[in-house]
Amino acid sequence: MKIAILPGDGIGPEIVAQAVRVLDKLKADGLPVETVTVPLGGAAYDQYGEPYPDATRDAVRAADAILLGAVGGPQYDTLPRDKRPERGLLAIRKDLGLFGNLRPAMLYPELAGASTLKPEVVAGLDIMIVRELTGDIYFGQPRGIHVNADGEREGFNTMRYSESEIRRIAKVAFDIAMKRNKKLCSVDKANVLECTEFWKEIVIDVAKQYPEVELSHMYVDNAAMQLVRNPKQFDVIVTGNIFGDILSDEASMLTGSIGMLPSASLDANNKGLYEPCHGSAPDIAGKNLANPLATILSLAMMMRYTFAREDVAKRIEGAVQAVLKKGYRTADIYEPGTEKVSCSGMGDAVVAAL
Amino acid sequence: MKIAILPGDGIGPEIVAQAVRVLDKLKADGLPVETVTVPLGGAAYDQYGEPYPDATRDAVRAADAILLGAVGGPQYDTLPRDKRPERGLLAIRKDLGLFGNLRPAMLYPELAGASTLKPEVVAGLDIMIVRELTGDIYFGQPRGIHVNADGEREGFNTMRYSESEIRRIAKVAFDIAMKRNKKLCSVDKANVLECTEFWKEIVIDVAKQYPEVELSHMYVDNAAMQLVRNPKQFDVIVTGNIFGDILSDEASMLTGSIGMLPSASLDANNKGLYEPCHGSAPDIAGKNLANPLATILSLAMMMRYTFAREDVAKRIEGAVQAVLKKGYRTADIYEPGTEKVSCSGMGDAVVAAL
Ligand SMILES: CC(C)[C@H](C(=O)O)[C@@H](O)C(=O)O
Ligand SMILES: CC(C)[C@H](C(=O)O)[C@@H](O)C(=O)O
Repeated sequence: MKIAILPGDGIGPEIVAQAVRVLDKLKADGLPVETVTVPLGGAAYDQYGEPYPDATRDAVRAADAILLGAVGGPQYDTLPRDKRPERGLLAIRKDLGLFGNLRPAMLYPELAGASTLKPEVVAGLDIMIVRELTGDIYFGQPRGIHVNADGEREGFNTMRYSESEIRRIAKVAFDIAMKRNKKLCSVDKANVLECTEFWKEIVIDVAKQYPEVELSHMYVDNAAMQLVRNPKQFDVIVTGNIFGDILSDEASMLTGSIGMLPSASLDANNKGLYEPCHGSAPDIAGKNLANPLATILSLAMMMRYTFAREDVAKRIEGAVQAVLKKGYRTADIYEPGTEKVSCSGMGDAVVAAL
Repeated sequence: MKIAILPGDGIGPEIVAQAVRVLDKLKADGLPVETVTVPLGGAAYDQYGEPYPDATRDAVRAADAILLGAVGGPQYDTLPRDKRPERGLLAIRKDLGLFGNLRPAMLYPELAGASTLKPEVVAGLDIMIVRELTGDIYFGQPRGIHVNADGEREGFNTMRYSESEIRRIAKVAFDIAMKRNKKLCSVDKANVLECTEFWKEIVIDVAKQYPEVELSHMYVDNAAMQLVRNPKQFDVIVTGNIFGDILSDEASMLTGSIGMLPSASLDANNKGLYEPCHGSAPDIAGKNLANPLATILSLAMMMRYTFAREDVAKRIEGAVQAVLKKGYRTADIYEPGTEKVSCSGMGDAVVAAL
């Protein structure tokens, strides 16, 4: 198991450090783990002048899986566009062909109070959002800011999806639906955008190979409403890059504890980059306050999807559940009556529970 | 006051009928109202074979303001794209240059229980979303489904905003912020999309004319999260057509009573189309069950924005508040302890309260 570790920026290094302790424990117990640590984003810019430098590229290409903390910070906001931390993230996704982004939104019963939604609306919530990650308006050409034919300045981007791009992400989503409750909702804006009308057509075609999966279609505006109105109607959602960006963030916030949510970004061979859904939280960086659980749970996803070690995934997830049951909470999920711990304190608890 | 009435499809005719009764009452009290009724959407297709026929176009062009019910229904879903009801809506917006879409999301204290969010999160919610309505990826060229240079089929659309388009919607938003709490949040995805990077640049430039307004910027994914986490942080939000479509629907659902929310779509001279935020609800059409209040409140917006009759707007809004206080509720907002009324029963109550 060759794993590249990318601490990144902000709270990235401290949360990743706790996940590495978990890896070390698993290694001590016999898991064949080999790690290499390289920078991405602002940290890479500081060291190499590039958010995705050659050293990082070589290391992640050689790895089977990648664990990322988070990228970005205010000190990088004034850099030219192509040097900014986000560029490193977009570049690594594209370079490794990580087209399948899996973002679960699930509510831990112990943390139900953290949601801004009423308990009955979110209790038992367990949605998987499958977001296409290397196409769409994120990467579509042409794009830019120019003077148009009327002599006026304008900004423009191109939303674009080819048949093969849609087909492969649809398959990922149907496969996941088969392992869950066999309900898949494809989100589009087919009433307005030809690109997503085409998306819908191809998804319907792929569905023929999955007769057991109940496929539905929803417009993106309605999906944004339904996630608030009745999120438990969803099992698996599949959508394009930009709609997935918006809806997966909305869905993760329904749980009220985004500090708990991992994600996976997979290529065609299940090589993957794993990272928490939350950002780099520069305001609390370096204070040993951050919640490392989403990063630790990202390791569990890595074991499940890249290494097909469901047993190890379950062991990690079981340890996280155990520390929640025991009442340990970092500041972001703290409630009166529980025990507040630091980032490393939470790492201690998980390693002990393992 | 030349008003074109477009009942549309589904519950459209029955909710508009109640709003027309309100208009009739105002006319009886001396308001110089003249109306003409024409079809749009599916109803227009049924009569003329087009969702936006010449007769409708001529009538709405000649009017000062337009009241629309809603368009769409399952019987039109299999029509060719250019005949579908939504096309009528997009065509009228573009034809009349209705670029400024105002969508308030506010919670009536009497209906606080209807929200899926906890009362303390949404009590007193009052957001105004200003959505650009005639540009962006909705109308951008080129677009279509074709075989690309690699010999593969693909769908594509173009997101596009010119400087003048951004400038005029930004002004609308700043003007509204000046009349409210002087806080404006511009939503973009400037970290990825050049089109919205340009949007942000122009909004910042327009802000110089409004030194009193506190301007902030937020990425669309974060905005989708913040609306769930803490919606009351927002006063006025301004954004493009597609992000506005998604966020305004999400925001309206925060109130739990989308049957209460009106909207306005304005041109450069405050000519406007007014319609409820909700759809045509084919499942309850013709049953006298629909909630006509969003349509009646759309009339209030018409009085305020097109006819500058704040007094009449307040009178209508006051009547709606009075019927809510008295406990009248249509099925969608009914709670035990209140009095359930039909669509026309609600119309009766509002006319009486006027
Ligand atoms: C940082 C940004 C480029 C990125 C995206 O939009 O994909 C982020 O929002 C995400 O969802 O991973
Ligand atoms: C029906 C559809 C074309 C329309 C839109 O996307 O603008 C609707 O969702 C709206 O928000 O008015």
